[in-house]
Amino acid sequence: MAERHDGRRPDQGRPITIETGVTPYAEGSALIATGDTRVLCTASVQEGVPAWRERSGAGWVTAEYAMLPRATHTRTSRERSGPRGRTQEIQRLIGRSLRSVTDMRLLGPHTVTVDCDVLQADGGTRTASITGACVALELALRWMLGEGLVERTAVREKVAAVSVGIVDGTPCLDLDYREDAGAQVDMNLVATESGGLVEVQGTAEGDPFPRRELDALLDLGMAGIDTLLAAQAQALADAS
Amino acid sequence: MAERHDGRRPDQGRPITIETGVTPYAEGSALIATGDTRVLCTASVQEGVPAWRERSGAGWVTAEYAMLPRATHTRTSRERSGPRGRTQEIQRLIGRSLRSVTDMRLLGPHTVTVDCDVLQADGGTRTASITGACVALELALRWMLGEGLVERTAVREKVAAVSVGIVDGTPCLDLDYREDAGAQVDMNLVATESGGLVEVQGTAEGDPFPRRELDALLDLGMAGIDTLLAAQAQALADAS
Amino acid sequence: MAERHDGRRPDQGRPITIETGVTPYAEGSALIATGDTRVLCTASVQEGVPAWRERSGAGWVTAEYAMLPRATHTRTSRERSGPRGRTQEIQRLIGRSLRSVTDMRLLGPHTVTVDCDVLQADGGTRTASITGACVALELALRWMLGEGLVERTAVREKVAAVSVGIVDGTPCLDLDYREDAGAQVDMNLVATESGGLVEVQGTAEGDPFPRRELDALLDLGMAGIDTLLAAQAQALADAS
Amino acid sequence: MAERHDGRRPDQGRPITIETGVTPYAEGSALIATGDTRVLCTASVQEGVPAWRERSGAGWVTAEYAMLPRATHTRTSRERSGPRGRTQEIQRLIGRSLRSVTDMRLLGPHTVTVDCDVLQADGGTRTASITGACVALELALRWMLGEGLVERTAVREKVAAVSVGIVDGTPCLDLDYREDAGAQVDMNLVATESGGLVEVQGTAEGDPFPRRELDALLDLGMAGIDTLLAAQAQALADAS
Amino acid sequence: MAERHDGRRPDQGRPITIETGVTPYAEGSALIATGDTRVLCTASVQEGVPAWRERSGAGWVTAEYAMLPRATHTRTSRERSGPRGRTQEIQRLIGRSLRSVTDMRLLGPHTVTVDCDVLQADGGTRTASITGACVALELALRWMLGEGLVERTAVREKVAAVSVGIVDGTPCLDLDYREDAGAQVDMNLVATESGGLVEVQGTAEGDPFPRRELDALLDLGMAGIDTLLAAQAQALADAS
Amino acid sequence: MAERHDGRRPDQGRPITIETGVTPYAEGSALIATGDTRVLCTASVQEGVPAWRERSGAGWVTAEYAMLPRATHTRTSRERSGPRGRTQEIQRLIGRSLRSVTDMRLLGPHTVTVDCDVLQADGGTRTASITGACVALELALRWMLGEGLVERTAVREKVAAVSVGIVDGTPCLDLDYREDAGAQVDMNLVATESGGLVEVQGTAEGDPFPRRELDALLDLGMAGIDTLLAAQAQALADAS
Repeated sequence: MAERHDGRRPDQGRPITIETGVTPYAEGSALIATGDTRVLCTASVQEGVPAWRERSGAGWVTAEYAMLPRATHTRTSRERSGPRGRTQEIQRLIGRSLRSVTDMRLLGPHTVTVDCDVLQADGGTRTASITGACVALELALRWMLGEGLVERTAVREKVAAVSVGIVDGTPCLDLDYREDAGAQVDMNLVATESGGLVEVQGTAEGDPFPRRELDALLDLGMAGIDTLLAAQAQALADAS
Repeated sequence: MAERHDGRRPDQGRPITIETGVTPYAEGSALIATGDTRVLCTASVQEGVPAWRERSGAGWVTAEYAMLPRATHTRTSRERSGPRGRTQEIQRLIGRSLRSVTDMRLLGPHTVTVDCDVLQADGGTRTASITGACVALELALRWMLGEGLVERTAVREKVAAVSVGIVDGTPCLDLDYREDAGAQVDMNLVATESGGLVEVQGTAEGDPFPRRELDALLDLGMAGIDTLLAAQAQALADAS
Repeated sequence: MAERHDGRRPDQGRPITIETGVTPYAEGSALIATGDTRVLCTASVQEGVPAWRERSGAGWVTAEYAMLPRATHTRTSRERSGPRGRTQEIQRLIGRSLRSVTDMRLLGPHTVTVDCDVLQADGGTRTASITGACVALELALRWMLGEGLVERTAVREKVAAVSVGIVDGTPCLDLDYREDAGAQVDMNLVATESGGLVEVQGTAEGDPFPRRELDALLDLGMAGIDTLLAAQAQALADAS
Repeated sequence: MAERHDGRRPDQGRPITIETGVTPYAEGSALIATGDTRVLCTASVQEGVPAWRERSGAGWVTAEYAMLPRATHTRTSRERSGPRGRTQEIQRLIGRSLRSVTDMRLLGPHTVTVDCDVLQADGGTRTASITGACVALELALRWMLGEGLVERTAVREKVAAVSVGIVDGTPCLDLDYREDAGAQVDMNLVATESGGLVEVQGTAEGDPFPRRELDALLDLGMAGIDTLLAAQAQALADAS
Repeated sequence: MAERHDGRRPDQGRPITIETGVTPYAEGSALIATGDTRVLCTASVQEGVPAWRERSGAGWVTAEYAMLPRATHTRTSRERSGPRGRTQEIQRLIGRSLRSVTDMRLLGPHTVTVDCDVLQADGGTRTASITGACVALELALRWMLGEGLVERTAVREKVAAVSVGIVDGTPCLDLDYREDAGAQVDMNLVATESGGLVEVQGTAEGDPFPRRELDALLDLGMAGIDTLLAAQAQALADAS
Repeated sequence: MAERHDGRRPDQGRPITIETGVTPYAEGSALIATGDTRVLCTASVQEGVPAWRERSGAGWVTAEYAMLPRATHTRTSRERSGPRGRTQEIQRLIGRSLRSVTDMRLLGPHTVTVDCDVLQADGGTRTASITGACVALELALRWMLGEGLVERTAVREKVAAVSVGIVDGTPCLDLDYREDAGAQVDMNLVATESGGLVEVQGTAEGDPFPRRELDALLDLGMAGIDTLLAAQAQALADAS
């Protein structure tokens, strides 16, 4: 592949911005944009934990994910008879990613719900949701610290996520919608500041793919996550 | 009442802004803000009409309404097992208001769905939705005209809506959440450029109220709607 | 309009009868007929209040509304996957109307549920429901008084409702189904013995309507409600 | 057992009345009362048949059953998230009973839906529904004949139903609610004018019961059904 | 009828096998086969009883019934939006049958749920479920005895069930799918070791049937149940 | 780790058996056992394809997954109000895996639904489902070939799946339930005969894990899949 359709190099992500404090009510919030994908992440602190967790003494972090009907190129129906399978898969992934970097014992009997609402969808909404949700969560935990609800912040390190894929035979970083629709392999990586992997999800969209392509995609993705971690750090520094 | 809690006079609405073209995909869109209430209105043009309307030869205009979970002061659950009664009431009201100013025979076999998604809720979300939706609808119909899908715009005149109410015994224009929560009477008015009424919905929250208070609220509301119609006109002129 | 299709004058309501004590089990009951519209209203007293109300110390009054499938000219499906939007709107309206004349602190920890089941529908079912429900509620509260569950009746005054509308350009009282289907404006009024307004809901079915038509409809409706309040008083006197 | 709690002999049914033509809209209707049990049966004729039956050339007869919330001694919730198991069992039984005496080929491409709505429930609501539904169905088929929709009536003979049971060791006919609640065996019989059985459903509520008790209950029930068939015949003769 | 399609005499049941202990986890289990019909019955003991039964001091026995999608000749959809009417009817029948032979006061605060999952369906699945479920229940109660959860087994006697029907004019025992589909009368009998009847459910599939056919079917079924009770006894003896 | 709790070496899978032709009705079927995990896989061939695929000219392969309530150590409720999120995730994974090795254009206008019903669950149910479903699918396609519905088999190569994980710090193959519950990392691999990857899903259950552990797990899993592919080949050869 000489060049991607929008002029990016294979190893180049889209421009990223993370704006914090975007809603007056949520305990933590972040509006993340990666290219034309925009996700509003709000973290809500609530007293109490789910019933099955009550005896543990620890808190809970969970996530919900949804798209506005016209976030997409053509209108998508609202999920008013329960979340679809894809939606449930995504919100479970976001929740697991956030919990992997949170010390839930430090939360005490509180639940933090991070809502990831996609305002515009141009590919990579689930990975942008994770990256933005981590910032909203960190801000909510700072708020809890300020209110004296916790003794120290429960987030151990930051977590970010990126998509990679094989497009026209070439491993590429951060696919947009057009690339994603035509990719031979599609993969999402979730990893932390210390370089640890949280989730690896790779899928052959057409033919099965060889192990060396998997390795190339992992290399590309880990480098891309470093960029995202830096953007998170900057946004959180600006919010202080 | 000497003065309202935010310093407004009884007959004074909150600052209003209407931003158009805010999403890259929708055929028409508007982001309306009245004070801290913010609603994203997107109009989607789709081929075809509901089955029950197919033989009529005319088009259809409908609306959906939802709140982001953290649009509110504390988190509200998503309506994932069908819209609640209040939500249905509101989206039926928005739809009726838009249809009252649209000549649906001119639409041909098309449906325009206007989604009103509340990003922040500080009172008056249903009236802001109507006022913003009218702008998004007009823009979508201009787009249809540009695409040659219709011969002339099907919107006959603009429609806007406002809330009025009795707060501490005084008739007030455009209640915010705090005022609304304590109002003795709560009323929504929907009216058009030519001064016609589309909907009048007044409710005693506590004791029944006398006819003369109804008349005072109607006076107040009709004046407030004029201001909103001017803001719509300005936004649409800027969008040309 | 020279004359209405059934020979009534514009300001003339349909014949009204209210029969009490029509079911052997309910604590209060009334069968109201306005023309061919017939609604069975039963009031059930139950111990306890909804969970969200438990700390208030006060009772609760709520309503449900439904139609028998063949109450209508052609058969309507049962609402077996939850009440439709229109049904929810109506039962919320009935509940609000009843609560506006009830002192719920006097009820103690009891809930009164008034079921309004439409046996025949010829227009005006929601207003007939309110007028009949008020009688059933009053009888249930008398029963509570007799049982020593309350110290005095919690209904402060009676409430009744009527529909008015513009038919063939003329403001008319108490529309039947045929008139309602062709009305230009449709309006429901709920008001009390002392002349207070509880709800005003006016809707342009076609073109928006001028303020003076609203005023004419209000005049017509308030007079019609007086007749209904008299019929309620007579039915309750007969029931003593 | 010396005597039943309401003074009836073991082989004596409750007083029965069947009133026809009780609603202005339905093609056939009957209000049946057996003691304090009252069921409104309306038969609605609709064009077309269910999709799975379209190729058969024959019509269809079906039934729905419901109780008003306060048909019962204490209030029962509406079945708004789908009919409960018991309700489905009953409406399937009513439908099968009606179809057993109908020649559906004569109906042509029409569906007759018989709604059985219980206004008061004092035991035996399912059997009263069948007995009343048969009358409403016959009237609807007479209407079809009058309209020229069918060439001759499709009902071959009448069908009726009764409950029998063992109360305090004695086989009894037509149990009311109080007897039903304490019965050792509960049985429903559906049979036709020509003495044919359509359904036999007997259940031990407590201990299993011997074959001779089954035989005694069958004898009692068949005699009771004769009385019901006579009441149907009289009601239909009066309706001519 | 000279001979049945599979060579059986009218009064001959299909070969029956009952295998116990077929799953490693359930407290009691039985795999019953009658001809090509195969049902896996597992009994699960759980602490606690349903809320409405809590004050009784007694335990509870309940049943669920389902078919694997390809248990049938052509694939049947899973019941993922709630059990269908037929399914509910069947599982209520299984539950009632089991409870008729269980002394629930002896169970203490425990619920036994017997799941009947049909692996292959060739007619008679509901009766095979009852016969197999009784064995699984007895084994679960022996397990409770072994664990010291009960003082003596709560099953008073065994219960079994069989289908009978009129095929080509002849009363036949234990119909398979092909016979069942063409039967004029279809009947299920549930009875106990001591010869008591628990349930009798006979239905005319086409024309109503005379009382003497009912009697013939009862005779045939009671004899068939004796064979099933013997097979249960053998399986339970082998399991000791 | 000296040794696994059941005596296996880290790189050793559980005993595997695949039995074919286990149901008389399905077009293809396989009962797979890996240790105590047992899954019944049935492939059903149906005419037609989902509506959204009709214009493509190609066929469709899909999968459903469910557990019997007592497949698990303690009873799990049936999913009667729609499949849970986890279930949807699994059945989407099975479907994607099967489609990755099927040439759907060769299927013509047919849908093959593979039902994976877990009879016993001791870890690895989703991977056993994929491995067994592939055999059932291949048999159904052979049946289609035999019936002349397709010209040649549409399965290009076999696909199998295995779980791997980090248990007590050691990478292990084919975790059972006890190991899975305590694993630090859990990973599922789906791969084909030609060595191509179809899916890679790795999740940190506790702390994030380093890239070299991912590489070790991939090595272990790919070797394990070879064993499964051999078992599939043997079962299919025996079925010829």
